[in-house]
Amino acid sequence: MTTALTPVAPAAAPTAPIRSAGTTAPGLSDLPPPAGTAVFDRGESRVRLYCRTFPVVLRRAKGARLFAEDGRVFTDFFCGAGSLNYGHNNDGLKAALAAYVAADGVAHGLDMYTVAKREFLTAFRTHVLEPRGLEYTAQFPGPTGTDAVEAALKVARKATGRSGVIAFSGGFHGMSRGSLAVTGSGRARRAGGVHGQDPVTFVPFEDGPGGAFDSVGLIERLLDDPSSGVETPAAVIVEPVQMEGGVRPASAGWLRRLREATERRGILLICDEIQSGCGRTGDFFAFEESGIVPDVVTVSKSLSGYGLPMSLTLFRPELDVWEPGEHTGTFRGNQLAFVTATAAAGLWSDEVFHRSRAETARALAEFGAEVADREPAVRVRGRGAVLGIDLAASGGGARAAHVQRYAFDHGLIVELAGREDEVLKVMPPLTIDPAELADGIGVLRAALLNRI
Amino acid sequence: MTTALTPVAPAAAPTAPIRSAGTTAPGLSDLPPPAGTAVFDRGESRVRLYCRTFPVVLRRAKGARLFAEDGRVFTDFFCGAGSLNYGHNNDGLKAALAAYVAADGVAHGLDMYTVAKREFLTAFRTHVLEPRGLEYTAQFPGPTGTDAVEAALKVARKATGRSGVIAFSGGFHGMSRGSLAVTGSGRARRAGGVHGQDPVTFVPFEDGPGGAFDSVGLIERLLDDPSSGVETPAAVIVEPVQMEGGVRPASAGWLRRLREATERRGILLICDEIQSGCGRTGDFFAFEESGIVPDVVTVSKSLSGYGLPMSLTLFRPELDVWEPGEHTGTFRGNQLAFVTATAAAGLWSDEVFHRSRAETARALAEFGAEVADREPAVRVRGRGAVLGIDLAASGGGARAAHVQRYAFDHGLIVELAGREDEVLKVMPPLTIDPAELADGIGVLRAALLNRI
Amino acid sequence: MTTALTPVAPAAAPTAPIRSAGTTAPGLSDLPPPAGTAVFDRGESRVRLYCRTFPVVLRRAKGARLFAEDGRVFTDFFCGAGSLNYGHNNDGLKAALAAYVAADGVAHGLDMYTVAKREFLTAFRTHVLEPRGLEYTAQFPGPTGTDAVEAALKVARKATGRSGVIAFSGGFHGMSRGSLAVTGSGRARRAGGVHGQDPVTFVPFEDGPGGAFDSVGLIERLLDDPSSGVETPAAVIVEPVQMEGGVRPASAGWLRRLREATERRGILLICDEIQSGCGRTGDFFAFEESGIVPDVVTVSKSLSGYGLPMSLTLFRPELDVWEPGEHTGTFRGNQLAFVTATAAAGLWSDEVFHRSRAETARALAEFGAEVADREPAVRVRGRGAVLGIDLAASGGGARAAHVQRYAFDHGLIVELAGREDEVLKVMPPLTIDPAELADGIGVLRAALLNRI
Amino acid sequence: MTTALTPVAPAAAPTAPIRSAGTTAPGLSDLPPPAGTAVFDRGESRVRLYCRTFPVVLRRAKGARLFAEDGRVFTDFFCGAGSLNYGHNNDGLKAALAAYVAADGVAHGLDMYTVAKREFLTAFRTHVLEPRGLEYTAQFPGPTGTDAVEAALKVARKATGRSGVIAFSGGFHGMSRGSLAVTGSGRARRAGGVHGQDPVTFVPFEDGPGGAFDSVGLIERLLDDPSSGVETPAAVIVEPVQMEGGVRPASAGWLRRLREATERRGILLICDEIQSGCGRTGDFFAFEESGIVPDVVTVSKSLSGYGLPMSLTLFRPELDVWEPGEHTGTFRGNQLAFVTATAAAGLWSDEVFHRSRAETARALAEFGAEVADREPAVRVRGRGAVLGIDLAASGGGARAAHVQRYAFDHGLIVELAGREDEVLKVMPPLTIDPAELADGIGVLRAALLNRI
Repeated sequence: MTTALTPVAPAAAPTAPIRSAGTTAPGLSDLPPPAGTAVFDRGESRVRLYCRTFPVVLRRAKGARLFAEDGRVFTDFFCGAGSLNYGHNNDGLKAALAAYVAADGVAHGLDMYTVAKREFLTAFRTHVLEPRGLEYTAQFPGPTGTDAVEAALKVARKATGRSGVIAFSGGFHGMSRGSLAVTGSGRARRAGGVHGQDPVTFVPFEDGPGGAFDSVGLIERLLDDPSSGVETPAAVIVEPVQMEGGVRPASAGWLRRLREATERRGILLICDEIQSGCGRTGDFFAFEESGIVPDVVTVSKSLSGYGLPMSLTLFRPELDVWEPGEHTGTFRGNQLAFVTATAAAGLWSDEVFHRSRAETARALAEFGAEVADREPAVRVRGRGAVLGIDLAASGGGARAAHVQRYAFDHGLIVELAGREDEVLKVMPPLTIDPAELADGIGVLRAALLNRI
Repeated sequence: MTTALTPVAPAAAPTAPIRSAGTTAPGLSDLPPPAGTAVFDRGESRVRLYCRTFPVVLRRAKGARLFAEDGRVFTDFFCGAGSLNYGHNNDGLKAALAAYVAADGVAHGLDMYTVAKREFLTAFRTHVLEPRGLEYTAQFPGPTGTDAVEAALKVARKATGRSGVIAFSGGFHGMSRGSLAVTGSGRARRAGGVHGQDPVTFVPFEDGPGGAFDSVGLIERLLDDPSSGVETPAAVIVEPVQMEGGVRPASAGWLRRLREATERRGILLICDEIQSGCGRTGDFFAFEESGIVPDVVTVSKSLSGYGLPMSLTLFRPELDVWEPGEHTGTFRGNQLAFVTATAAAGLWSDEVFHRSRAETARALAEFGAEVADREPAVRVRGRGAVLGIDLAASGGGARAAHVQRYAFDHGLIVELAGREDEVLKVMPPLTIDPAELADGIGVLRAALLNRI
Repeated sequence: MTTALTPVAPAAAPTAPIRSAGTTAPGLSDLPPPAGTAVFDRGESRVRLYCRTFPVVLRRAKGARLFAEDGRVFTDFFCGAGSLNYGHNNDGLKAALAAYVAADGVAHGLDMYTVAKREFLTAFRTHVLEPRGLEYTAQFPGPTGTDAVEAALKVARKATGRSGVIAFSGGFHGMSRGSLAVTGSGRARRAGGVHGQDPVTFVPFEDGPGGAFDSVGLIERLLDDPSSGVETPAAVIVEPVQMEGGVRPASAGWLRRLREATERRGILLICDEIQSGCGRTGDFFAFEESGIVPDVVTVSKSLSGYGLPMSLTLFRPELDVWEPGEHTGTFRGNQLAFVTATAAAGLWSDEVFHRSRAETARALAEFGAEVADREPAVRVRGRGAVLGIDLAASGGGARAAHVQRYAFDHGLIVELAGREDEVLKVMPPLTIDPAELADGIGVLRAALLNRI
Repeated sequence: MTTALTPVAPAAAPTAPIRSAGTTAPGLSDLPPPAGTAVFDRGESRVRLYCRTFPVVLRRAKGARLFAEDGRVFTDFFCGAGSLNYGHNNDGLKAALAAYVAADGVAHGLDMYTVAKREFLTAFRTHVLEPRGLEYTAQFPGPTGTDAVEAALKVARKATGRSGVIAFSGGFHGMSRGSLAVTGSGRARRAGGVHGQDPVTFVPFEDGPGGAFDSVGLIERLLDDPSSGVETPAAVIVEPVQMEGGVRPASAGWLRRLREATERRGILLICDEIQSGCGRTGDFFAFEESGIVPDVVTVSKSLSGYGLPMSLTLFRPELDVWEPGEHTGTFRGNQLAFVTATAAAGLWSDEVFHRSRAETARALAEFGAEVADREPAVRVRGRGAVLGIDLAASGGGARAAHVQRYAFDHGLIVELAGREDEVLKVMPPLTIDPAELADGIGVLRAALLNRI
């Protein structure tokens, strides 16, 4: 017997950064903390993250600009992890918010009837759902994306009477226990004490560090084999574009196959549009391009348009199996967010906004093509107003961190994504001024060129 | 063999309402929906709850008053389930908020350094922690109470390396999967697909519908028996006052025994102060009266003071075992909430506020004594600015619903609690005007007298 | 803040020995291994246990006697943890077995129809079930006790459609994953990777190291509170006499209350009679004395009467919800065991056997009374043909180990039980010759007197 | 929105028969029960299976022959699901057993030292392990295959400190809770209340109803992606030949890749040889052909050689991390089985046995080739002394049932396997007389030809 295996000592599990919206750049973390941060050091948990990557105390923000206490100004190509698609403190939204506060509009209302909520429901239907032919019932599950995912999983389980869920490697859905159970990141799962207690089956995504994969084929194989060990699940949960996973869009064909595979078996399809939605990666929803209609959709981040906590779980009306009060939450009616969200929804009927959005997307795509052209080893992915510049084969996470730091030093905030933080995730406001966009792209070009 | 047992047909499980902040009153739900609510009926999920109990469209709010679209005015003895301890749209907080919005203060900041966050950390330390001799590290886990509980459970598990938790019957901690697992409500658990996957051991609380119980004795017995089937847990999670459970305060002696029992065994004690805290049931924290110091404390609801989503997980500095970014969340830095929370913290150094708070508590206690005196079968419980009027032995849920409806018809919003909604939970703003308070109490007195 | 708590370092969990049938006596384990054991040392896992306590190589056995390779002879007051209630190689059973083997009777038959199985079913009905007015359907779930428990839990869950189970601290039900989940021993659970994945609620037994406990009161309180955190379970599983738990009989009143509490709520009552049954602790079943009729009963150990692997899961005919083949097992038809079990069942209609059994019980009770009388700090428990001598308050595990070693040195095999192996568990064959019994008792008396 | 999906009504899950050793043939179940079976109908659970497929009361057995009460004689091509590889009541084994019983050899010995156990350990080492260069430590985990699997999973988890396991679709490992969790059959899992509580990841096997699959590629992809959602597991468990799954041998190359993939990552490889081992599918172990050395091996079924309950968990000596008594079991020392197993081990040094085994394999292979040749749509698989005739593409389960019934009517017992019982699993004794083998094959040929 010749085996040299000595597995008693557990192999170190491969680790990857977790994040809800980009992550730490190791190369930056040795920067000295800026002035005025002793309070944080003394009183805030070590868990804080972005202040390590971007060591600056921010005071004010407008559009694509962030203004620091020390006078520095930054262009924001990160946008609160997708929460600021309309820019910081958008004037139209600000005016609505200020007026509402001044008038002593109800600020906190649980799920009572309020004028603010009614106006949001009306605006969202008028400007977003109806033009797209979508008929969804809205649940306000609490103000965060993870609340929306928790509610989506609950409603799927209750409506189908099943408990299993299929999720994808590389997917990110949130940090509360139910959402973590469908999130791929080993680091996040371990930190959250999630180790397989829930009946979740992970399948590789269409695209990942291991290359292309026939996800739908595997799902069908598992579900059509009565001895596969995997039961017919309540739902499949998918991000049409995996943002934290490294800016990886699913193809329209793959989404259609997934929709067909789930529909045929009576499995609910949940599209998590928390980061991909609100216009970031296509039209309002990322799934629109493929023509599919999910059973359940989660929306948050830029929903309020002002960075205020708000989320929605949308589902087909037939799936509204809730009894009153079965899912509650103190902040499920964030009225100030309703006010700005109403104004934000209106932008979707505004031609100026659409032109701006298109122009932003065009400029990003152009820059992406340029990068791909000049450095073929760099893999460029993107859709709409997000660009992923994958340096895995060309410098990896170290180079990405270097680019990020160079950008910061030159007044540009940009985040990283991917398993090893090897992907630059470029997310300017959809409404960014073309000149500001060009400047920011210029910084990135220089940062990348510095090496080339 | 004479057994008449026929258990194959599952016995109907006893059911109880769930809520995060009061619940539906069945007696009210047959009220016709008010004008202007067709939009809700068409587009919002059936899960909505409070709008059924209080069928009125609200527009404006100030102090203890809610102003409806149709001109009606209500006095608020519910306060957003404890989120509005300082009243609606408190002027001092409003001024700070309006100024911040006007100045384009950063609205969304993830966990970057911001001036707003620094000011909150400073104010909270100065006005809340230091005067109480408390030394806690603050984590901003996301903007809701359930986020704070999820983070508390994670940090407890990570710090101890254990996974079990002891929780109490009647306890309520939130609706996301991790919090639900430590929440007693069978209805909420079933709706959430929670059925014992997590290693949570439930123990009857000191007080409940079954009467007094030696909870600490049972915990010690289970933990000291190596064959009890219950392992030493990471933590015990407790509400010093069970609010949803029917306004049931733990005695100081019980809390001290629990603290001692956990401390002796290296088990973390988590006090969930989400509804009991921020001055509602005693000093800032409900646990202060007993003299114990929990290892972990969760705070939310009235933390922002303005009803804006915000929460904190506080823990002893030695427990700050997080790696950067292990728990994240898009809205973990709700800057507008920081601004109002800073102002709210300042109230704790304001003598006027303290006098008002004391006067509110005194008036409630007086009314409670009056009720107990006039109708001995009614069990009156309370602490600080909350009064629980338990009608279990005197009319039950039906009577409570009747009182609630009478109150609503007479311009008073009051919520129910308890397993069968048999407890009136009276929670006016701490800062309510004495005359408004007296009026509201007058309505309740009449509603109760109507029967007597 | 003055807390001195430093819980980050996990407290060492209290540990207790596990066993299926008695356990190691630490005091004996330093004995040198006897001659002829090198093969074991080289090739058998360290998990082996009893050979450490009783370091002797056995060759032959008859009645109450064990004959070692080296010529030593031992009297057996352990009886294979209750598997040899009729003594070793009982002549009547042996004759039947030898004849069957000689005739090439089917030795392995899965669950095909065989003559041997039919004869057992007939004999068990005639001699055991019918005289007791019991009407049970028999499932042969596999040849071991833990198989019987696994099948009992499955049938309870399937019949009720619920998944929870209530089990008792101190209970022992087996080492496979499902049985471990309802077994109290922390050591066994940890070794088996069981840490609360299954919805099992543990309740202290009527009697335990912590003293008397109102188990049924706690169960009723948990089940009658819709917010207790504990759902109505499929079943309660109980040993009418906790044998491994330290020879702790449940009182008849307690069992009746438990039966009533479960029956009223449509919960199945599973009596695990694997060690307590087959005549060891009363009549055939330990539960008979109380007059209750369980819904499900597990039987094994002495069922075959010859120490051959065999077990039964009995349930009320209405609970036979199985589809063919839903629970299988290669050795669920151990035909040789059927043959000896048929002969063993016949003993229950044999007056000589009953007299012998009664005489054994009488002698044990007399000795127990003598011990209790002479040393009041020793707690003596027992029922039928088992005697538990609890030295917890009088020397503890160390004294018990000393007694066990003294006994071994003087030719007597006796096992220990209880959390800390502090209880002598005296279990001679029911059919032991009175003189042999007296001799064995004499050794025990001397061992105990050695100290007195 | 045009989706026609109506998933609220749960789709019927595809079902498949479960079995531990073949299964019901629906076509046979309408046969009238034979005479003498009223006792079974009255007293035995509906869960019984094989007596439905083979409705005959068996009395006696010898070699490949089964003798019924009514005078019929059957040839056994099923062999107790692989428990009777040496035939029924093999004379050499019988003689040893009869002598041991006659001499009052210890029949039940827990894990004490006995002469019978020592002789088995010696014989197994001499005749099985040493000639193959294998150095394994033996644990006697209880007498059944599922006990061996439970112990294997425990030791893997304890040795690695991890909890996850990777298992394969189509795999069968046993009916107790831990083994069920790694078994693919949906029907068995549902009946056992297993629904994903344990961290088990299922991967399609190399071969299955869905065709070939790159199992090792998927495993590597999942394990090498830190965000895959699948943690590095304690172990991979695999049957080198999936017997219940439809007689599907893994290729040597696949096994070697799996061994390499696990070894490189410190993951233990458990080979479940319960049905494939003891000479059925190659040499003693099925894995030998590939040259790999598993870390853990489970053996049972034909281990005793006489159909007596006995099993072994073998592991590399470094993995013997058990503390004494951490896994116990009343029948872990089935001494009569040790006696016959000792004799059976000796056969592996007997040339006559090896010639017979080779001849049996040759005849089966020849018949398989003939079938494949005459009916190309029939897929024939096999290895050693098992032949799988897969009728999936040529008549399916209905034809298989027809063949099985024809065979039974003509005196041949043969079982079915596969998801839909569409595979004839031909398993005569290794030692069958060539003429008997030819006769049985003749019956099968006729049954298949009847259609052709």
